[in-house]
Amino acid sequence: MDQHHDSSGEAQTADLDFGPQAYLRDDDLDGDTLREECGVFGIYGHNDASAITALGLHALQHRGQEAAGIVSYDGSRFHSERRLGLVGDTFSRREVIERLPGNAAVGHVRYATTGATILRNVQPLFAELNAGGFAVGHNGNLTNGLTLRRELVRAGAIMQSTTDTEVILHLVAHSRRSNFIDRFIEALRALEGAYSLVCLTNKKLIGARDPLGIRPLVYGELEGCPILASETCALDMIGARYIRDIEPGEVIVFDEQGVHSHKPFPPKPARPCVFEYIYFARPDSVVGGRSVYEVRKAFGAQLARESHPDVDVVVPVPDSGVPAAIGYSQHSGVPFELGIIRNHYVGRTFIQPTQAIRESGVRMKHSANRAAIEGKRIILIDDSLVRGTTSRKIVRMMRDAGATEVHFRLASPPILYPDYYGIDLPDRGGLLAATHSLEEMRELIGADSLAFLSIDGMYRAMGEPARDPAAPKYADHCFTGSYPTHLTDQSLVEPTQHQLSLLAEAS
Amino acid sequence: MDQHHDSSGEAQTADLDFGPQAYLRDDDLDGDTLREECGVFGIYGHNDASAITALGLHALQHRGQEAAGIVSYDGSRFHSERRLGLVGDTFSRREVIERLPGNAAVGHVRYATTGATILRNVQPLFAELNAGGFAVGHNGNLTNGLTLRRELVRAGAIMQSTTDTEVILHLVAHSRRSNFIDRFIEALRALEGAYSLVCLTNKKLIGARDPLGIRPLVYGELEGCPILASETCALDMIGARYIRDIEPGEVIVFDEQGVHSHKPFPPKPARPCVFEYIYFARPDSVVGGRSVYEVRKAFGAQLARESHPDVDVVVPVPDSGVPAAIGYSQHSGVPFELGIIRNHYVGRTFIQPTQAIRESGVRMKHSANRAAIEGKRIILIDDSLVRGTTSRKIVRMMRDAGATEVHFRLASPPILYPDYYGIDLPDRGGLLAATHSLEEMRELIGADSLAFLSIDGMYRAMGEPARDPAAPKYADHCFTGSYPTHLTDQSLVEPTQHQLSLLAEAS
Amino acid sequence: MDQHHDSSGEAQTADLDFGPQAYLRDDDLDGDTLREECGVFGIYGHNDASAITALGLHALQHRGQEAAGIVSYDGSRFHSERRLGLVGDTFSRREVIERLPGNAAVGHVRYATTGATILRNVQPLFAELNAGGFAVGHNGNLTNGLTLRRELVRAGAIMQSTTDTEVILHLVAHSRRSNFIDRFIEALRALEGAYSLVCLTNKKLIGARDPLGIRPLVYGELEGCPILASETCALDMIGARYIRDIEPGEVIVFDEQGVHSHKPFPPKPARPCVFEYIYFARPDSVVGGRSVYEVRKAFGAQLARESHPDVDVVVPVPDSGVPAAIGYSQHSGVPFELGIIRNHYVGRTFIQPTQAIRESGVRMKHSANRAAIEGKRIILIDDSLVRGTTSRKIVRMMRDAGATEVHFRLASPPILYPDYYGIDLPDRGGLLAATHSLEEMRELIGADSLAFLSIDGMYRAMGEPARDPAAPKYADHCFTGSYPTHLTDQSLVEPTQHQLSLLAEAS
Amino acid sequence: MDQHHDSSGEAQTADLDFGPQAYLRDDDLDGDTLREECGVFGIYGHNDASAITALGLHALQHRGQEAAGIVSYDGSRFHSERRLGLVGDTFSRREVIERLPGNAAVGHVRYATTGATILRNVQPLFAELNAGGFAVGHNGNLTNGLTLRRELVRAGAIMQSTTDTEVILHLVAHSRRSNFIDRFIEALRALEGAYSLVCLTNKKLIGARDPLGIRPLVYGELEGCPILASETCALDMIGARYIRDIEPGEVIVFDEQGVHSHKPFPPKPARPCVFEYIYFARPDSVVGGRSVYEVRKAFGAQLARESHPDVDVVVPVPDSGVPAAIGYSQHSGVPFELGIIRNHYVGRTFIQPTQAIRESGVRMKHSANRAAIEGKRIILIDDSLVRGTTSRKIVRMMRDAGATEVHFRLASPPILYPDYYGIDLPDRGGLLAATHSLEEMRELIGADSLAFLSIDGMYRAMGEPARDPAAPKYADHCFTGSYPTHLTDQSLVEPTQHQLSLLAEAS
Repeated sequence: MDQHHDSSGEAQTADLDFGPQAYLRDDDLDGDTLREECGVFGIYGHNDASAITALGLHALQHRGQEAAGIVSYDGSRFHSERRLGLVGDTFSRREVIERLPGNAAVGHVRYATTGATILRNVQPLFAELNAGGFAVGHNGNLTNGLTLRRELVRAGAIMQSTTDTEVILHLVAHSRRSNFIDRFIEALRALEGAYSLVCLTNKKLIGARDPLGIRPLVYGELEGCPILASETCALDMIGARYIRDIEPGEVIVFDEQGVHSHKPFPPKPARPCVFEYIYFARPDSVVGGRSVYEVRKAFGAQLARESHPDVDVVVPVPDSGVPAAIGYSQHSGVPFELGIIRNHYVGRTFIQPTQAIRESGVRMKHSANRAAIEGKRIILIDDSLVRGTTSRKIVRMMRDAGATEVHFRLASPPILYPDYYGIDLPDRGGLLAATHSLEEMRELIGADSLAFLSIDGMYRAMGEPARDPAAPKYADHCFTGSYPTHLTDQSLVEPTQHQLSLLAEAS
Repeated sequence: MDQHHDSSGEAQTADLDFGPQAYLRDDDLDGDTLREECGVFGIYGHNDASAITALGLHALQHRGQEAAGIVSYDGSRFHSERRLGLVGDTFSRREVIERLPGNAAVGHVRYATTGATILRNVQPLFAELNAGGFAVGHNGNLTNGLTLRRELVRAGAIMQSTTDTEVILHLVAHSRRSNFIDRFIEALRALEGAYSLVCLTNKKLIGARDPLGIRPLVYGELEGCPILASETCALDMIGARYIRDIEPGEVIVFDEQGVHSHKPFPPKPARPCVFEYIYFARPDSVVGGRSVYEVRKAFGAQLARESHPDVDVVVPVPDSGVPAAIGYSQHSGVPFELGIIRNHYVGRTFIQPTQAIRESGVRMKHSANRAAIEGKRIILIDDSLVRGTTSRKIVRMMRDAGATEVHFRLASPPILYPDYYGIDLPDRGGLLAATHSLEEMRELIGADSLAFLSIDGMYRAMGEPARDPAAPKYADHCFTGSYPTHLTDQSLVEPTQHQLSLLAEAS
Repeated sequence: MDQHHDSSGEAQTADLDFGPQAYLRDDDLDGDTLREECGVFGIYGHNDASAITALGLHALQHRGQEAAGIVSYDGSRFHSERRLGLVGDTFSRREVIERLPGNAAVGHVRYATTGATILRNVQPLFAELNAGGFAVGHNGNLTNGLTLRRELVRAGAIMQSTTDTEVILHLVAHSRRSNFIDRFIEALRALEGAYSLVCLTNKKLIGARDPLGIRPLVYGELEGCPILASETCALDMIGARYIRDIEPGEVIVFDEQGVHSHKPFPPKPARPCVFEYIYFARPDSVVGGRSVYEVRKAFGAQLARESHPDVDVVVPVPDSGVPAAIGYSQHSGVPFELGIIRNHYVGRTFIQPTQAIRESGVRMKHSANRAAIEGKRIILIDDSLVRGTTSRKIVRMMRDAGATEVHFRLASPPILYPDYYGIDLPDRGGLLAATHSLEEMRELIGADSLAFLSIDGMYRAMGEPARDPAAPKYADHCFTGSYPTHLTDQSLVEPTQHQLSLLAEAS
Repeated sequence: MDQHHDSSGEAQTADLDFGPQAYLRDDDLDGDTLREECGVFGIYGHNDASAITALGLHALQHRGQEAAGIVSYDGSRFHSERRLGLVGDTFSRREVIERLPGNAAVGHVRYATTGATILRNVQPLFAELNAGGFAVGHNGNLTNGLTLRRELVRAGAIMQSTTDTEVILHLVAHSRRSNFIDRFIEALRALEGAYSLVCLTNKKLIGARDPLGIRPLVYGELEGCPILASETCALDMIGARYIRDIEPGEVIVFDEQGVHSHKPFPPKPARPCVFEYIYFARPDSVVGGRSVYEVRKAFGAQLARESHPDVDVVVPVPDSGVPAAIGYSQHSGVPFELGIIRNHYVGRTFIQPTQAIRESGVRMKHSANRAAIEGKRIILIDDSLVRGTTSRKIVRMMRDAGATEVHFRLASPPILYPDYYGIDLPDRGGLLAATHSLEEMRELIGADSLAFLSIDGMYRAMGEPARDPAAPKYADHCFTGSYPTHLTDQSLVEPTQHQLSLLAEAS
């Protein structure tokens, strides 16, 4: 699927109370951030399936704050609740959980990458097939979603959402196979791109991961009941035991007969997305067998190895830069200090009354801790650089607070290419590193020095000797341009101009 | 579609503030009322298409109070707003109308007859077909909706609503014809039952009426722009000119080339639903060329002709009994008095604190006007009798207020059979007249005498000599059992037990 | 204007921002209506005091639709709920009633006459005095409220509302008497104007009516428990028994010792407000011993006696003109017809898209019933005339629908003077009859003839030979200028310009 | 005023959408936290007074999350908005700011210490005095508020709130002085306890701080306009310049004539509350001339000096324990690690489905970062200990994650006594340290060792040689029992049983 945003529809919802704008964070205003696409969760056989799913989604909230949904099955009917807003806004309420009875459930949190944030796009999607009900939650993005959609509509399909995920439902519905799992696998074979799926039928909980394993999916267990989740932190939240990662290309099925693993695709070397380590996953998660926290510390230590100016303090850009800054500090011996305080009550965009105030630097999200900075030479550590607008403000804020030198380090390489697998990045024209030299970036940001983690350094911090161009271990296309799959939709004429839906702003 | 109600889903909506219960009227509590199914409206070529549609729907509000929707087309995209609640709750607001740009629009008000009252069932339904967008608003009910739905799902269709209307979209999507109107007509040929449709494509406004013309649909004009509406009162509201009724079996198409009328069905004698005259249509509407008000007065006059006890005053059961009571009074010479006052602030069900108070007769909706009744022999006139529970309460209220005799008259014949064309009636077991003799009903209601308008009298009041059993002029099956179409869904095994949707209470 | 304010209220409360504008009805837009001030209710000693009070207020809803409140006392604490909107919006909900425990309660419905419609002005007002809690609900308006307010603030009082009612609380708080009833009576002695009060302390339910009895207040009984209410319809709603009217100048006290009546004022001839009969009271109420319905019919019959053009039908302006039209019809023998249909789903102001539509007469509230009018000479009967804007529209609507002659009759005399006792009327400049001759009015309204009920005719319809200028039986100052009390606040410099509160638009 | 909580009223609000429960944080469930009382802000002479006040309050949000309010003055009228919820929920919206015109404004954020969290208690309070309008925002708590309230009610005052702050309004209203500042100072002389006030009249912005300076108040300047704020972080947020702290006992007045400082009280040694440094103030604020961040680091370093077990890592309890943990790490050389990850999406209490899950440790707010802990000896640093329930859970969570030893350190002394100046602490019976020995606490918490910062160590970290019992430099009564003022209300008979208001749950 491509990255088209139908922002015209964003304000549209039947729900008067919490439109998406209620959750616009100030980062969003200038788009200077990475945004995760989704998180998924599923459980089979537990009496409190929906309540546990709600907790699991809450632990995955960092993967998507715009909407959340749960579908449960009670033995005769499916029940669905899908809402805009945070998990806790809706799914912490007893009456909502009571409307989701049954001992199997799948859930989803969403940051919209395709399709406007409107209620009909909130997942899990549900369809009544001839075989019975079928619910799907999807993390990732298809690179041939639009192409498949067109083919299906031409064949008479009527789409109810504007998401790429819906094509999976229609592919299953149109399959001529008689066995449900065969139909599902036939559908997967048509897909291209990234997908970690949790699916629910009236008999089974199904998990699936694309052949390259671009997005994560783990398998755990609570009181004997199998669980699927995007990250291990969701297992920790509910006291569940981690069993293993779902393998790339694996289809795992849980039903009354137990667990069955299918491997319908020819084996290929995995290419998990390196951004899970850099930014997306929670630091207490273990992704692909590695502690995210430790990897981030290693990125920071590697940064110190690659270049180390003479400074007085290491200051993280909170919160995502903190582990790398700790790693940098521990490796370099330079003291770690909270030179920037993060205001946790963000979430609304206030009126900024006058130009003078705007220029003097209203700080809704970050403020300088002058006592830790004044008269010091500081090194700032952030996780990654997208547009650079926030970085520029932070550097100026540091100087205003009395820093005598400000060095800026990114715990990841320069982002040069867009992503098509579920990360919401600007076009190349909007990526600072794709359009500016290092020196131009340094000057624009206003730092005394600027450095990025090297690509080989990134691999080294993850235990590889260096990146192997013939067989890179990770999906690192944003840094290298080496995309791991076809990008079929990109070959459509003017795909970015294409009107994804004829129905604007629909409720 | 059959008349199954999925009331379990009624409480389900994304809208936190006004669940359907906010609109529960006290009649609804004992189901002792007729409920209309829907009203439709469409306009083509007017700059203020949506604002005019909102006004038209407001005039049709009596035909459906549970939800309302408008779809407009602006030349490149469709725009849709569908909400639970009254038209004025949503569509009186400028910002909502501004989200519905374009010079063509169709709208719908709904009292759910099939499918729970959930947002995804609110019409007009919209689909993106290969040919482009297609919106449909439907008044009526299909008698083979469930059968068609099953066939379509078997062929791979995924339904987004639980309404019978959606099968029309899928039939069009699956048609092999190349011309859109041909596809549409092919779809209509598969339908059985009652339908008055307004449809919008990116080129056309289309109206259609089932071959028997069971539900009404009129054609008018405002400032040169064609209008379709369920009743003439919607034309009056906006100052539009009435042109003619859409004929039974007619498909009318408005586009840039003008107006085209298609008659794809072999001609048959029309069978418009007589309940439009008895109860549903607004008294100031002209239906099938007749003033509804005058027909109701004629029913009342005919009642007086058929039996006239010696009484002091004629008292209408407000508001629907008023025209018949005026007719009765004018024909009989007995004074017309407001013996019952209607409280127009109903809409909520209050706690009725104690049994004593309940028995003493808390009157949320009606109260006795003692001054007009005390010491009098009265004749009460109501439009029709369903369960009889309200009638019993009203008779007792009249006696408590001092009436010395209470005679009860219904300005329609006894209802003996259910409807399958969009009127929400109880099963036969719940219809008082289907299960009790006249004398039993009189005793149960507590009246001194009870009489219904005769079937022949009803026809006579409408200008016929009597009902012609070989060729009845109206759909009068609720009184006679003579259904004008096949009832295919009724032959399904246990149709009333059938689970309409696997997804309960979905949002 | 009509006394059934029907469903203008029904649609509300979906509106989250419930500023007063949410309750603007379309009548309000041109101010062409009489608006009632308030209704009060109280009960003592009943286990379901609050639930019964809610029902009583619902029956009094026509007296005030902007806000409602209940204060209860549970033996140790007072409980209060005060909300903008209709009674049923809030007080039909079990959880609200459960927050109002206790066996004594007072309630109030409000149409603001003084003070903006903000929550702190919603009654009953409550204060914690040294003697304990004290709640007051007030129907009427003080003519020295502003003067008293200024004196109290000068003495150090801090007002929490902008209502005139609050001065009563402060007068009681500042009284030096030791006995509570003495303090209360001392406060009443300072008041000038119209007041019917229901008050609650931790021991007593108290009712009081001003010395002239301008506003109504009745005393009833339910299951042995005393009740106070503005109108008998509130007693009927709950099945309570009417005992008697509270007398002008009476203070009635209910406590554990029983009932005590105080008459602290020297006796004077009563002057009840005649507008209760003309417009305000519900037709099924009995006010001052007279059926409101019968009085209105008598006004209509008297109108026919005073002038009777040769017409074909009598048409009421619904709903308030209906009883007078029935009286006119019965006296004159001219048939009564529903020539105007009222839309009960008003309550919102829709966008009126184009000038053409506006001029062609969009009718949100009334529509012409052409069948009853076309080709007829009609006589329209309305209750009263304020600005005349609605009357003009209705006459034109009748002509557009084919009436050949339109005669207009008002079942009350011309309104020439403002009211200061709780009726919200325009200044003299806004009163049509105060600024135009009869012929000018007729021309402006566009009627073929125009006539008002004569003042003597009004008295005659109420059983008097004529108005006795030396001792008029009713407060009829709006017709005669003969105000029954001093108007102290009117002598303040620029009283109408005076800023009632320094705090604008407070929440 | 005392610390009585009227929690029965909490659910009560005029605001349907976000009752206080929406903001219940999970800490609140077991009361194991310190809660700040309030923050205040005021500005004089700026065109964007209200927008700037909204930003200032947002920066002070950590001082009170239950409600917020702003009162502005536009030269002729006052405008007020007071709402439950966060500042950003209401005051980020343009239409709200536009309802607060004028160039002077005062604002308040509140965590209720007295009076239920109901709208009428939300500050700034406003009164219309004879001299004109008067708005007051108060941080702190009076220790004779209840006594003064009783005296005022006895004299005829009617209170509109249940806060201690309102007595200030009434004392000013009842003063016999003619000059407003004289009246205000006369009122202050009657007060006992802690107060930092911002007040607005139609001419002046006034700040005042109690004679001991228990609560902070700073004076700054933006574009030539004076600002008052609880903390310097509010000045930083808007780019304002810090000028100086308001002195203990100082009354500062800003008007068209400029700034005037009054010192109406005899000078006394200041006793600022030490908890501002320990917990309440934001780390980037400078309180009493000291960086809060640096003081907290010094507390951590002092902790390391006082006892230092042999451990592998220092782990802060986030977020409040972070600066002390950094201080400890830097002093001891033990690596600082994020062993606990804080979930920033808290705010709702989810259903915890089964006992098994509850015991296995559902972590809504904190989760263990196993990679940083497993196999390690850790030392946990938290700011203070109230009930100990959270500490016990965290220790167990650390052991579950594989910590081999868990040592617990508090960067403040044991809390032994309640506070009466605005900090919401449990009674002595609820304070763990007041009822358990150190060893009992260690065992209860489950740590391998437990230590608190010593009282002298606390003073030493702040630059004093030790605490001087004859003249302690800070209000440290929670640790020492040495209260800096009289506690008049505590001598009332059964003050904690006293019913603060006769009106329960009033809106």
